[in-house]
Amino acid sequence: MTKDIKKIALLTGGGDCPGLNAVIRAVTKSAILNYGYEVIGYKFGYRGLYNNDFIKLDLATVSGLVSKGGTILYSSNKDNLFDYTVEEDGKTVKKDVSDVAVENLKKEGVDVLIVIGGDGTLTSARDFSRKGVKVIGVPKTIDNDLGSTDITFGFNTAIDIATEALDRLHTTAESHHRIMILEVMGRNAGFIALESGIAGSASVIILPEIPYDINKIVQKIEERKRNGYLFTIIVVSEGAKPKDGEVVVAKIVSDSPDPIRLGGIGNKLAADLEKLVKDREVRCTVLGHLQRGGTTCTVDRILSTRYGVAAVELINEGKFGSMVCLKGNEVSYDSLENVIGNNKQVDPSGELVTIAKKTGISFAD
Amino acid sequence: MTKDIKKIALLTGGGDCPGLNAVIRAVTKSAILNYGYEVIGYKFGYRGLYNNDFIKLDLATVSGLVSKGGTILYSSNKDNLFDYTVEEDGKTVKKDVSDVAVENLKKEGVDVLIVIGGDGTLTSARDFSRKGVKVIGVPKTIDNDLGSTDITFGFNTAIDIATEALDRLHTTAESHHRIMILEVMGRNAGFIALESGIAGSASVIILPEIPYDINKIVQKIEERKRNGYLFTIIVVSEGAKPKDGEVVVAKIVSDSPDPIRLGGIGNKLAADLEKLVKDREVRCTVLGHLQRGGTTCTVDRILSTRYGVAAVELINEGKFGSMVCLKGNEVSYDSLENVIGNNKQVDPSGELVTIAKKTGISFAD
Amino acid sequence: MTKDIKKIALLTGGGDCPGLNAVIRAVTKSAILNYGYEVIGYKFGYRGLYNNDFIKLDLATVSGLVSKGGTILYSSNKDNLFDYTVEEDGKTVKKDVSDVAVENLKKEGVDVLIVIGGDGTLTSARDFSRKGVKVIGVPKTIDNDLGSTDITFGFNTAIDIATEALDRLHTTAESHHRIMILEVMGRNAGFIALESGIAGSASVIILPEIPYDINKIVQKIEERKRNGYLFTIIVVSEGAKPKDGEVVVAKIVSDSPDPIRLGGIGNKLAADLEKLVKDREVRCTVLGHLQRGGTTCTVDRILSTRYGVAAVELINEGKFGSMVCLKGNEVSYDSLENVIGNNKQVDPSGELVTIAKKTGISFAD
Amino acid sequence: MTKDIKKIALLTGGGDCPGLNAVIRAVTKSAILNYGYEVIGYKFGYRGLYNNDFIKLDLATVSGLVSKGGTILYSSNKDNLFDYTVEEDGKTVKKDVSDVAVENLKKEGVDVLIVIGGDGTLTSARDFSRKGVKVIGVPKTIDNDLGSTDITFGFNTAIDIATEALDRLHTTAESHHRIMILEVMGRNAGFIALESGIAGSASVIILPEIPYDINKIVQKIEERKRNGYLFTIIVVSEGAKPKDGEVVVAKIVSDSPDPIRLGGIGNKLAADLEKLVKDREVRCTVLGHLQRGGTTCTVDRILSTRYGVAAVELINEGKFGSMVCLKGNEVSYDSLENVIGNNKQVDPSGELVTIAKKTGISFAD
Repeated sequence: MTKDIKKIALLTGGGDCPGLNAVIRAVTKSAILNYGYEVIGYKFGYRGLYNNDFIKLDLATVSGLVSKGGTILYSSNKDNLFDYTVEEDGKTVKKDVSDVAVENLKKEGVDVLIVIGGDGTLTSARDFSRKGVKVIGVPKTIDNDLGSTDITFGFNTAIDIATEALDRLHTTAESHHRIMILEVMGRNAGFIALESGIAGSASVIILPEIPYDINKIVQKIEERKRNGYLFTIIVVSEGAKPKDGEVVVAKIVSDSPDPIRLGGIGNKLAADLEKLVKDREVRCTVLGHLQRGGTTCTVDRILSTRYGVAAVELINEGKFGSMVCLKGNEVSYDSLENVIGNNKQVDPSGELVTIAKKTGISFAD
Repeated sequence: MTKDIKKIALLTGGGDCPGLNAVIRAVTKSAILNYGYEVIGYKFGYRGLYNNDFIKLDLATVSGLVSKGGTILYSSNKDNLFDYTVEEDGKTVKKDVSDVAVENLKKEGVDVLIVIGGDGTLTSARDFSRKGVKVIGVPKTIDNDLGSTDITFGFNTAIDIATEALDRLHTTAESHHRIMILEVMGRNAGFIALESGIAGSASVIILPEIPYDINKIVQKIEERKRNGYLFTIIVVSEGAKPKDGEVVVAKIVSDSPDPIRLGGIGNKLAADLEKLVKDREVRCTVLGHLQRGGTTCTVDRILSTRYGVAAVELINEGKFGSMVCLKGNEVSYDSLENVIGNNKQVDPSGELVTIAKKTGISFAD
Repeated sequence: MTKDIKKIALLTGGGDCPGLNAVIRAVTKSAILNYGYEVIGYKFGYRGLYNNDFIKLDLATVSGLVSKGGTILYSSNKDNLFDYTVEEDGKTVKKDVSDVAVENLKKEGVDVLIVIGGDGTLTSARDFSRKGVKVIGVPKTIDNDLGSTDITFGFNTAIDIATEALDRLHTTAESHHRIMILEVMGRNAGFIALESGIAGSASVIILPEIPYDINKIVQKIEERKRNGYLFTIIVVSEGAKPKDGEVVVAKIVSDSPDPIRLGGIGNKLAADLEKLVKDREVRCTVLGHLQRGGTTCTVDRILSTRYGVAAVELINEGKFGSMVCLKGNEVSYDSLENVIGNNKQVDPSGELVTIAKKTGISFAD
Repeated sequence: MTKDIKKIALLTGGGDCPGLNAVIRAVTKSAILNYGYEVIGYKFGYRGLYNNDFIKLDLATVSGLVSKGGTILYSSNKDNLFDYTVEEDGKTVKKDVSDVAVENLKKEGVDVLIVIGGDGTLTSARDFSRKGVKVIGVPKTIDNDLGSTDITFGFNTAIDIATEALDRLHTTAESHHRIMILEVMGRNAGFIALESGIAGSASVIILPEIPYDINKIVQKIEERKRNGYLFTIIVVSEGAKPKDGEVVVAKIVSDSPDPIRLGGIGNKLAADLEKLVKDREVRCTVLGHLQRGGTTCTVDRILSTRYGVAAVELINEGKFGSMVCLKGNEVSYDSLENVIGNNKQVDPSGELVTIAKKTGISFAD
């Protein structure tokens, strides 16, 4: 047992993810009920740590949070205190302000910092650990692409939502004999597309890990037509790429002087397929932010609770500089040094891709 | 009671809409069980009527359809037999082929045609009625903008889905202090945006009927900030327009030679607000096809069943050339001549807009 | 416009009902934003009024309540201040303590009392109105049996939940060729059973308003068997009764000395049918409290918001002693004197029962 | 690779379970697309095997089944061909008719039998394997209590439904300061109660594996009251038992001459707590059949698909007499001899119970 731990702090960083609040709740309850730790939460991720902006967390604060999406501690997306944007002498400069954070922790008497976040947020956590701060990480990402853990919380809620969307698109595709494309999240890893595609009965799944040949998609559409199925459902990860060359990022020409980035791979695919499959309409829906908010699903509520309690156990056992993780069915941990830089991807010859292929799903490879 | 009716036919036209199958089921059950009519269904809307492509509908065919989205008769979007595209002497020409349809009805001994569709589909129904065909219409549109009826089936499922989407966006908006925009359907009428905006607790609702002033949106965002709410949810109909001038339709510049239409009002609004509200991120989600498919909601199941049974009653009463409708809580009917050309819009000074304003929602007018 | 209204109070009474919080939110927002009234809420219904136990309601208090089930003001089921249980001289006696309530209202400077509740709660509201208190009622009941209004909030959430339960029972009934009974709420009125039965594709609907003949149920089961459907779904209101005589209320013989009331009409029906239909299993599920809690459905969120705003409008117009209501699509009002004692029931020859019968549903009458 | 396999048969046995249809679909697709096997399905479980009552399964038959609850092959609950009830000489006798089944398999040229079921159904599968029939098992049970596998399909859908029910009960419990009990399935194993209790934020979880002391439940209720929480949610497995003695099975006294079994542990607990906790109401809801039907959840769709494909792989590899299973994240297999008789239970000192306790949940032990 670690002696002399009296106060711990929490922060949440990066994009929204169902289960953040459930982790905050589990950490707080477990820390107070079992070890009597005092618990505070920094607001807006690392920015709050820099500004010493925090709230006290007690049992009442976290009551009812197991199912609630979002984070009561708020988050910020790109605040890296080791390369932070500050105003100095009227100019905006980048500098390392991590010492301010360390000072703030000392000033408040925080013994351990629990960081809940994805790749970027946990990289900073590792860097604070290297500076001597006692840090515990909790893996968070919709995309499920963090290394060292079989699964991250948020992922199961995302595939639930994507699967429900595919269920909805099915009735329209069938009734109108359409080709319907759903673009889901996954910049570097296709786990959401793969699992929702299997669950939502897609005929084609396009992943970042398996560059696609558009002619193979057309072949699948034609094969289905020969078998009497005049519609086709395609699910595509936002980070998917064709075999031949890059996706030119689409831009909008609006009446705004500064057009924003808009069309991704899903809309490109729709445009390309409309030219190749003459007799049917193609439509693309981009699921976007719908897959990262709202009520947390059952699996993620349980997983987040396990992670939160396990994080407090790691504190008690003195295992600092590590991240809780899931290996098979067991909650375990790994060092942050191992986690960072070892992101996961879908294995193109792994079981799930194989299963999908054996039930007739095409990856257009 | 109408004598000599022995056989009726059904067809479904236009975009997908939850409740189509429930109407088909109710018509079929009611016609067979109560009057012993024979029932057939033309496939792909009017195209099937032109090609004499139909299936027999009996109790087994329609079993289990009350909840199933889509239409087992399939649909087509733009087939107008009074101005139909045909090949003639190797050329594509437009011509009136409605006589072929009338001939097909005679040949099959169809006494009455029930047409389930929106504005376009019902316009043809009226035109067939003018040609002497016994026609009954059933009003279908997600947008709820058909005249003569208080409500169309499909609308309630659409607002359920849009409301659930707003619930999801709320957690992300709150956690990240963002301005989140949801673009919903409604080219000419803002009913979906209005009702889902009230139910989903939007702060700003933008409708086609109330041109918006972008400065009023910014004012609302600032007012909320002063009251401690750093996020704002905006719901916008696809057909919304700014007070000053038209929306330039956005196009994508992709690596496809023929760029498809893409960015609508929601994305334009996001681009414009990002420039005006410096300190916060703005994100837009386009709900698109997700709001027209999937399981039919309770209200639409009941309404579709009422409409289907009422259509058969109108046949029995000989009230041809009319459309079933809902007036308050009562199922009633109106002539197709009255329906067409009298589309509804949200009343900018009506009860629902007033209610919304009194609870603090801005229409940016 | 009513002059001199400065402060209003709210209370919620009776069983739980989705939409209570949405009404509280709409009243509070509308009162503060449009008229500058001060708003307080008594806790635990009339008990709080008696004990002068209240909280201040402001915009922050009601933020986020549009979708949340339950009531932040709490409720109590049977507290009638005109016949209230108090301790006096060590004995429990019943007495009229309504003067204490009137006194409390005066003491706090409350000008108008908004009472949200069903039959019992609104009867007291009428009685306070008779005593000179300025009262506005808002109709609340899952069962939809209140007079003077076409619909009460909470009802649509209840039928959504009951319909989803019927959807679930369908797959088991079909796979196991079973007779599945769902008992839903409705002591005196069968609206929930009727509407969920139509939406959930029940074959038999049993209502309090139409006493049933068990042989007619058996006939329906046999008729379905002849048509190839080896399963039957029955939905029954808790208040349903057989044609011949009363339901003996079932009791449990447990090892508790004081057995609680348990088995209702659904379980009796299952027991009776098991004896009459030899070749198939019969199972009953009692939906119970599941149909009155949880997230409020879209329709109820909108209706509750309309009712809440309308209640404040009635105050402004000085229409005291009245209840907001819905007539067709229009929000309106009626006097509490008319409401009480005029509860609604399903019309056995009305449109919905007729529609159900025409699609083949049996009422076993 | 196994030579000479040309035809395989499927059957489903035991209670309804979401995912049955998804397994049937995956087996059929995988067998036809990858190995060209012919596939048939016996109807009503072993009864169909005895009566040689089957249907051909092809790609069209199984289309759309990934999400659909129930089983298109129907099921029967208690048909054991090794101890089967038959009519002989006008009398009902029990006898071993398994040879008839073996004969039927030979007659139809079935090379391998895939049996999808729980403990009872798989025991017969093992017995057929002992008789020389090539058998593959697929583990199915809502309760998740089968040995040799970490998880069975159907379980995750069940905990989703139970968790949603707990979410609903929460609002009513909070608003009315009630003690709400939810009885869920689990005759011998408490996995559903345990996982839904954690996800649904129950304060007390009662399992078959941890006999309860009613005084400990009362203590928890009192402790919560002292902390300001006037409501308590309890989830209890149907097979739970008090520390002191057995549960006397409750019976109903109805006006039926032959009263049916009704009240289980949940209702007993409610009756007992009402006597011990004077100042609050206690209510019990029995979830019953609602947790085994309806749309299959995402996790179960994927798991069922993996199991179905893996079963066909085992055939190809000649691994007969075995059952597919999940070990950690890997699909694997074990011999049916090992599976039968080794049912799982919740480990009272395992991780999940420990996690639950550390977040303040009482098991009343």
